[in-house]
Amino acid sequence: MITETILLKQRPIGKPKLSDFEFLKEDTDLAVKNGDILLDTIYISVDPYLRGRMNDAKSYIPPFEVGKPISSGLVAKVMASKNDHFNEGDYVSGMLEWKTKQISTGEGLIKIDKNSAPLSAYLGILGMTGFTAYLGLTEIGKPKAGETLVVSGAAGAVGTVVGQIGKILGLHVVGIAGTDEKTEMLISEFGFDHAINYNTTANMKDAIKKACPNGVDIYFDNVGGPISDAILFNINKFARMIICGAISVYNNTEIPQSMSVQPFLIKNSALMQGFIIFNYADKFPDAIKQLSTWLGEGKLTYKETIVEGFENTPQAFMDLFNGKNKGKMIVKV
Amino acid sequence: MITETILLKQRPIGKPKLSDFEFLKEDTDLAVKNGDILLDTIYISVDPYLRGRMNDAKSYIPPFEVGKPISSGLVAKVMASKNDHFNEGDYVSGMLEWKTKQISTGEGLIKIDKNSAPLSAYLGILGMTGFTAYLGLTEIGKPKAGETLVVSGAAGAVGTVVGQIGKILGLHVVGIAGTDEKTEMLISEFGFDHAINYNTTANMKDAIKKACPNGVDIYFDNVGGPISDAILFNINKFARMIICGAISVYNNTEIPQSMSVQPFLIKNSALMQGFIIFNYADKFPDAIKQLSTWLGEGKLTYKETIVEGFENTPQAFMDLFNGKNKGKMIVKV
Repeated sequence: MITETILLKQRPIGKPKLSDFEFLKEDTDLAVKNGDILLDTIYISVDPYLRGRMNDAKSYIPPFEVGKPISSGLVAKVMASKNDHFNEGDYVSGMLEWKTKQISTGEGLIKIDKNSAPLSAYLGILGMTGFTAYLGLTEIGKPKAGETLVVSGAAGAVGTVVGQIGKILGLHVVGIAGTDEKTEMLISEFGFDHAINYNTTANMKDAIKKACPNGVDIYFDNVGGPISDAILFNINKFARMIICGAISVYNNTEIPQSMSVQPFLIKNSALMQGFIIFNYADKFPDAIKQLSTWLGEGKLTYKETIVEGFENTPQAFMDLFNGKNKGKMIVKV
Repeated sequence: MITETILLKQRPIGKPKLSDFEFLKEDTDLAVKNGDILLDTIYISVDPYLRGRMNDAKSYIPPFEVGKPISSGLVAKVMASKNDHFNEGDYVSGMLEWKTKQISTGEGLIKIDKNSAPLSAYLGILGMTGFTAYLGLTEIGKPKAGETLVVSGAAGAVGTVVGQIGKILGLHVVGIAGTDEKTEMLISEFGFDHAINYNTTANMKDAIKKACPNGVDIYFDNVGGPISDAILFNINKFARMIICGAISVYNNTEIPQSMSVQPFLIKNSALMQGFIIFNYADKFPDAIKQLSTWLGEGKLTYKETIVEGFENTPQAFMDLFNGKNKGKMIVKV
């Protein structure tokens, strides 16, 4: 059976390049042993956090190994099963390798329903993306109606969901993104109250102040760097900052410097907390229930950028750092 | 009646200087009206946070006004009373002005017991200093026996108490201070497990790693700056950082830069929270009860640096930034 695989050829230095990846095409015998299932990949999720796993550094999940396949969230179809929990024809999602076909024990995979939502949604709004937005905002942000929420990386997969949930919960919602097309989309399609284009705004500190006349109570941070520095000048007493991503510094080769946050935290009794969705696995059932309800009620919408072709997976990943995606970036195999 | 007062003459730029303060000596009639008490100052507390109030910046308490008296925690004796809650001869503590004598309505003052502890203790271990150490460590740090606690500014007033409470609660306690005399004192007098002199340690990151073989679970931060940066390399998953002070940057005239904390918070699901003791006023009765018990049981000890003379109050305050104090810095009037 012909199987294609994408390996990490070498650890990227700074921005990832195509030459950091290696393609392998093999004709292998994928034997389905007792307890195993054979999977055919349909969709691959590419996410900024994968950049961190390409470094050889201790983190919340082990780094990728050089010469080994990369893995991320996938949707796949069960082609054959010798596992009681899965039948041929089932669809599953979970953390799997960047392969067109692979054998799995089924561990950590969840069965998904093709009829209640499009399959790609299980990599986005009904998957880690949606869980991250919902649980980050509610568990750390602890929003109260009438408060002000600012979201950076707002036009990204997580950001668009965070903003919409903010509106559902009665918050004043301000998004920060990098093009006028994106900021317009945040307002017209996702219901944000205001949106700021950081690429055309000379003074972010003042722009945030203007967009948030009552100050910032909750900051959902996907970017880090100077945008997050500008937020600190505008936080209210008891502000909560959900540190979900730092895409602006993921490719740095030296340790990035920013404003010292400590004086701002002290004078506002403010909180910054690193958020990793994998710590909240016990809350995924609640999250999927709430998100499905809102989706069914038409209160949530989502955007996907779908790239066609397994071979374009590394490029799709690299494009995340150039802001080429609107909403969730997914590869259709 | 001759009364001396210390005013803020001008807002300090960088490190405070004697010329930023003004002394006033007046012969005034301090009339005790109905509801008022006349106070004679015995002890004045000088604290690093007062530096922040000397700037004209929005913070958790309003800035001092130029040309007006400075205020801080004082212990005073009631010389005359037309207030039902206080009698002549009572001792009180509370936020009062830097004056040798003053009239007060009694609002916010608490009566203190000269017999159960020395009067100066009510500005330290049984006052804001002790409350800050105890409530910061327990409310944000949420310590579990066996965990590792690092305290910066460890030889300061709050730091020595934090470390001792850490030991009472079964933690591995490491202190960071700026002289060998201080680090030796932390171990021999206050029971810290390890202490690091940052002035003689070339690589703080490695020194912390060595002193904390199991990593850092709780960081009680009194200093900010490069020491706090070095901590970030050593934090464990779910670490809690109590941001209580940032003395290393209080005198900066430009916005201080540090390492970007966000990537460290994310990869460790770690928390940083600004701590202001004034937000925890409802817990002061619990705190004083617990601290008095430990003090009575001989489990807590404290150190004071007592400077004699009202006229030396500004110098005592300035000396905080040169690390001249061991434990609580107090002026005896």
